Amino acid sequence: MSEFERITLIGIGLIGSSIARDIRAKGVAREIVVCTRSPETLRRAEELGLGDRYTTSAEDAVRGADMVIASVPVGASGAVAEQIAPNLKKGAILTDVGSTKASVISQMTPFVPEGVHFIPGHPIAGTEKSGPDAGFAGLFKGRWCILTPSEDADPDAVARLTRFWQALGSRVDTMAPDHHDRVLAIVSHLPHIIAYNIVGTADDLETVTQSEVIQYSASGFRDFTRLAASDPTMWRDVCLHNRDAILEMLARFSEDLAYLQRAIRWGEGDKLFELFSRTRDIRRSIVEAGQDVEAADFGRHALDDKS
Amino acid sequence: MSEFERITLIGIGLIGSSIARDIRAKGVAREIVVCTRSPETLRRAEELGLGDRYTTSAEDAVRGADMVIASVPVGASGAVAEQIAPNLKKGAILTDVGSTKASVISQMTPFVPEGVHFIPGHPIAGTEKSGPDAGFAGLFKGRWCILTPSEDADPDAVARLTRFWQALGSRVDTMAPDHHDRVLAIVSHLPHIIAYNIVGTADDLETVTQSEVIQYSASGFRDFTRLAASDPTMWRDVCLHNRDAILEMLARFSEDLAYLQRAIRWGEGDKLFELFSRTRDIRRSIVEAGQDVEAADFGRHALDDKS
Repeated sequence: MSEFERITLIGIGLIGSSIARDIRAKGVAREIVVCTRSPETLRRAEELGLGDRYTTSAEDAVRGADMVIASVPVGASGAVAEQIAPNLKKGAILTDVGSTKASVISQMTPFVPEGVHFIPGHPIAGTEKSGPDAGFAGLFKGRWCILTPSEDADPDAVARLTRFWQALGSRVDTMAPDHHDRVLAIVSHLPHIIAYNIVGTADDLETVTQSEVIQYSASGFRDFTRLAASDPTMWRDVCLHNRDAILEMLARFSEDLAYLQRAIRWGEGDKLFELFSRTRDIRRSIVEAGQDVEAADFGRHALDDKS
Repeated sequence: MSEFERITLIGIGLIGSSIARDIRAKGVAREIVVCTRSPETLRRAEELGLGDRYTTSAEDAVRGADMVIASVPVGASGAVAEQIAPNLKKGAILTDVGSTKASVISQMTPFVPEGVHFIPGHPIAGTEKSGPDAGFAGLFKGRWCILTPSEDADPDAVARLTRFWQALGSRVDTMAPDHHDRVLAIVSHLPHIIAYNIVGTADDLETVTQSEVIQYSASGFRDFTRLAASDPTMWRDVCLHNRDAILEMLARFSEDLAYLQRAIRWGEGDKLFELFSRTRDIRRSIVEAGQDVEAADFGRHALDDKS
């Protein structure tokens, strides 16, 4: 028996379309309503058979839904909430997948009608690709999903949303929104910003050509280009909507980098060796926690062999 | 028929042991002599069957060799050259695999005897693992190897070394040492330094625990931990021996980061979007050039499926 009668997905990009595929694969809902603003994207979602009904109207899409999941850039959260609010069913769960939580909560909460359970969420999963074609069943398997319910949230609704993510293979954690935003600033936002920045720096060099950067990228640079190929709209919004935590992490990062730079300038090999040694353990812990593959080079060579 | 009678490998870590396996697999030499300073590492190399003869004495190891390949941290290059110089065979090729070239050349050249062809080299390949067990046949396949011969180098010897790397599946390019060092500073040294730095920054946070960093690392951070798990001795030496080029790239990177930081502080979404958009093309070019896998997430999900 399906846990939900009808789930409405607002936004059908990488995350939305992966959720759609998993709902279908796991039989979590009897009906999937797909909604996106762009007629072209909606047509593609229909070609891919991601839902049972398709519409560009968010107002219509949410009618009668037990659960509504907004998978849109965080800057669009308020507008979506405003649009759908009048038609949300009493008792429905409203959730999102945004990478920042305090901002999403302050944008959406004012519009949430009495009797609707707004429980913000954030699945820690994704790839550098975007759009409905980029999604796949299994994206959330073994990954964490963080929920940031308010203190007066309905426990049954939280439990129901928890079971939803567990059905998709996720492990679920709950956290205060501000703490979520600080944790994500260091584990996700700063890495993406740094990756975008270094790729930009390399692109601007006058003395090293772009074709040299590309040709010799296997020596390290290519690892950064994956994150830097992520969706620009999403990341612009993350920067604008988690500003304070990101600025704090950037300040710490720059401070540490200045220390390292000074050690290089003055030839302080001991300081360099000390820093370069302490970081191996963290990699090992990540692999042991099942959050990355153990194979060398992310397993790229395993794929090489196939070709 | 083997191209070489005897090749001596000084150093048998990730790179040296991968070369050994490839020489054997491709039949490039009739005899492989393995030499490393550490008796323990040498024993392990012997257990792995990486060579035909094993010794901890570099002086002895190079006797009668047609080619000697030093695969040691770049800071050890001068000491190795001094040790082996008296016993190098006339007409032999002496090469290395170091990540910096100007420094290696200035360290080794004074010791190279008349009649020995010193041709510095740098295969652009590797993983985050180290030691003789980490090597594997095929590491250099499809990767570039950069040679930085002096202007008066013997063309036949350069051609012979070129054929050697080609036999291992590499593409070979030649370059001036200083240019090599600038190219590698941006495509390899800066990425590793940045990766080490961000992992250190995360480790030092008081408000986010290490277990949170590990648990949620799939959102970006884990990509950096691979590079930051590389061999600390190797990277200390790279920083000390390519100081000027690295300091220049670090200065540019920090300048660009300050610009980005200011755009975040003042909410300049257009500037952020512009930077975040221009970087996708570079990723695409790297994949098209065969220097990274096309699969999303470095193909990690392909490995997920197997488990």
